[in-house]
Amino acid sequence: MDQGLSLNTLPLKELRNLIRNNQFTGSTTGCAAGYLQANLVILPAEWATDFLLFCQKNPVACPLIDVTQPGEKYLQSIGRDIDLSTDVPEYHVFYDGEFETAVSDLSTLWREDLVTFVLGCSFSFEEALIQSGLSIRNIDEGKNVSMYDTSIPCQSSGKFSGNYVVSMRPFTSIDAIRAIQITTRFPKAHGAPVHFGDPSLIGINDISTPNYGDAVEIKPNEVPVFWGCGVTPQNVIRQSRPPFCITHAPGKMLITDRLSSEFAVL
Amino acid sequence: MDQGLSLNTLPLKELRNLIRNNQFTGSTTGCAAGYLQANLVILPAEWATDFLLFCQKNPVACPLIDVTQPGEKYLQSIGRDIDLSTDVPEYHVFYDGEFETAVSDLSTLWREDLVTFVLGCSFSFEEALIQSGLSIRNIDEGKNVSMYDTSIPCQSSGKFSGNYVVSMRPFTSIDAIRAIQITTRFPKAHGAPVHFGDPSLIGINDISTPNYGDAVEIKPNEVPVFWGCGVTPQNVIRQSRPPFCITHAPGKMLITDRLSSEFAVL
Repeated sequence: MDQGLSLNTLPLKELRNLIRNNQFTGSTTGCAAGYLQANLVILPAEWATDFLLFCQKNPVACPLIDVTQPGEKYLQSIGRDIDLSTDVPEYHVFYDGEFETAVSDLSTLWREDLVTFVLGCSFSFEEALIQSGLSIRNIDEGKNVSMYDTSIPCQSSGKFSGNYVVSMRPFTSIDAIRAIQITTRFPKAHGAPVHFGDPSLIGINDISTPNYGDAVEIKPNEVPVFWGCGVTPQNVIRQSRPPFCITHAPGKMLITDRLSSEFAVL
Repeated sequence: MDQGLSLNTLPLKELRNLIRNNQFTGSTTGCAAGYLQANLVILPAEWATDFLLFCQKNPVACPLIDVTQPGEKYLQSIGRDIDLSTDVPEYHVFYDGEFETAVSDLSTLWREDLVTFVLGCSFSFEEALIQSGLSIRNIDEGKNVSMYDTSIPCQSSGKFSGNYVVSMRPFTSIDAIRAIQITTRFPKAHGAPVHFGDPSLIGINDISTPNYGDAVEIKPNEVPVFWGCGVTPQNVIRQSRPPFCITHAPGKMLITDRLSSEFAVL
C-alpha cells in the first residue's frame, strides 16, 4: 500500500477502512482535510483519575477532547462508527513505562479496565493554516511532522510528571505571526505556539535530529515555531511507569468524524 | 517641567493642559493609561484625497481613526475638548517634504485649507500588553519607543509612496506570542506585528541605532518584534514632497478621550 501523499485526498471513510484493516499504518499528517485528528492515551482505570487531572493541569500539552468509561471502545462525541481499538494506524504499547511494541490494532491487548483519553492534535489546525495561504513544510516534503523532547516542565499530577514534547513547523516571521493568530483559535489542538526561534532555549540541542517524526528543511530566512504536542504523554509515561499503557504512534493519529472548525473559538 | 515617568500617572485632563500650555513636550509612551493615542498628519486639502486613499491601501501602517473637514481643528469622534492645533506635545513642520522645524503649537501656522488625519498608534495597545503581565522595555527604561525605517514598501496612492516605519519592542518568544495575540485585537493601533527576529530581513542594518526614538536593551534570550508605525507617513512625505505638511513628532502623540478598548475587536 502506497503510504505517500496520495492518501491525503482519500475520503475519510475510505481512509478509516484502510486503517481499520491494517492497510495503512503511516502518518496522518495532511490526511482527511478538515477533520479533527486526535492523540490517544489508554490507561488502566486505577491510573485514570491522576491522568485526567494531569490533562486538566496541562491543557496546552494535553487538550482533552473526551474520555471513555472503563472498557469502552466507542465515544459518540467524536463519531458513531469509530472503534478506538482499531482505527489508529499504529499503536505503541508500554509496560512499566518502557516501550514494548508497535501494533496496528488492539484486539489481542484489550482489557475491560482500560480507559481511553482522546486528546487534540496540532494536525487539526494545519488545514486552517493551509487555507490561509501558509505552507506546512513536512506536508510539502511528504514527511511526518518533526517532534522534540524539551526542557519545558509539565505540571505534575499524582504519579504523572515530565517535560513537554513539541511539534515544529518552520515559517518566515510574517507567516509565523499569521500562524500564531490562526492556531490561537484552536485551543483543543494545542492552540498557539509555546516557543519560536532558538531551540536551545527549550532544551533542543540539535534541531536537525527530531526525537520523533522526520527532520524537515528550515530555510535561512525562517524560524522554527514550536507547538505543544500530544506525544507529551508518552514522555510522561516513560517517567511515570504505569504498569500498562497504550498510545497512538507519534504522527499516526485517530481521525474523528468531527470537523476541526467545530472546535475553533472566535 | 520633569518629563519623566511621573507623568504617566497624571490624569488625562491635567496632562492635556500641560501639553496645551506647552509645559510638556515629551514622549507620551506610557501616559494616560487606557486612552487611545494617535498620530497626526495635516495636509492641504488638495493633497488630502490621495492621502485618504493611501491610508485605505495601507491600514497596518496608517490605521485611520478620523479625518477633519478643511480648516477644522476639532473632531467630535475623538473628544469634545481636543484642539488638534495645540494638544500634541510637539509638531513637526515640513515644506516640500523637508523637515523645517519643531513647534509646540500651530497657532501661527494654521491655514483654512488644512485637513487633519488622525491615525491610530501602537502606544494604544501597550496598556493591554502590560495588563496581560508583559513588560514594555522602553517604558521600563523611561524612554521613547525605538522606531526604524525599513525596506517594506507601502502601496502607493497618487503622489504618496514610500516604505514602512516600524516600532520595536523586545520580548522573549513566549511573551512575543502573547503580544501577537493581544495586538491582533487592536487593528486601529497597527494590529499584529509585521516582523520579528532578524532586523536585516526588513532593511534594518543596525538595531542599536533607531531612526526615531531611543535605543533600548535587547536581552540575549529576546527577539525584537516590529509593529507598523504612524511615523510611516513622515517617511512618505519626505519622498512625496507636498508643499506643506505638519505631523506629530515621533513618539509625541495626541491623546484622545476615547478608550483604546473601545477600538478593540473580539
